[in-house]
Amino acid sequence: MCECVFCRIASGVIQGLRVCEDAETLAFMDIANDVDGHILVIPKKHCKNILDCDPDTLNSVMRTVKTVSLHLMEKCGYDGVDLLNASGESAGQSVPHFHIHIIPRKRNDQIDAWPHFDGAKQELRSVFDKIRM
Amino acid sequence: MCECVFCRIASGVIQGLRVCEDAETLAFMDIANDVDGHILVIPKKHCKNILDCDPDTLNSVMRTVKTVSLHLMEKCGYDGVDLLNASGESAGQSVPHFHIHIIPRKRNDQIDAWPHFDGAKQELRSVFDKIRM
Repeated sequence: MCECVFCRIASGVIQGLRVCEDAETLAFMDIANDVDGHILVIPKKHCKNILDCDPDTLNSVMRTVKTVSLHLMEKCGYDGVDLLNASGESAGQSVPHFHIHIIPRKRNDQIDAWPHFDGAKQELRSVFDKIRM
Repeated sequence: MCECVFCRIASGVIQGLRVCEDAETLAFMDIANDVDGHILVIPKKHCKNILDCDPDTLNSVMRTVKTVSLHLMEKCGYDGVDLLNASGESAGQSVPHFHIHIIPRKRNDQIDAWPHFDGAKQELRSVFDKIRM
């Protein structure tokens, strides 16, 4: 049996609070209890993160992210969403199964969903010269 | 002429540091200078955020996000990426043209790319009952 906790939630071996699902994807409540309404969207098929996610699966995940986001706005009284993803351990990815966080937002909800960056250490142009394609 | 600053960067009316582009999308350097290597991926076609982005455009944006992310890992010495999006003013969206932030990451880079959430205020199950589809 797959040891991946999100595969086990997707298959129902581990119970989750399932917000919605289709053949390819599942949206369920994050139990971190860090912010109200925290939802995760995952592909049912295992992939580690965006880097190894095939195009069809990625499109399915984003379709569900949009569907859930619209539902939150149109039916649940929210005004916006923040979307977060960490791909790779160095980026802070804790569960190695691709997942996109949805944080539902309301005006004046006092939630700070933007990271506290310390400022760039390198000159913008020099970084650009290294990463331009 | 379109007043949207990202439309103007996409069309070249405003210069940007263009990391890569295709017919539908553009990746360019964010000039906020808040964290090294901060990249934005946008659709060339105007939409406000994920909520009004048509499926083909959303798929194109995510294809470019993945392409740039893989390039950062395979060619530029990064180990991961964080992806961020704010959709809606209440979510902190500052420029009303859909954009996904890519923050390139390396092991032990001392970047904290996760928001500082204050903890949930409501009981998880009660929020779930309101938002399940």
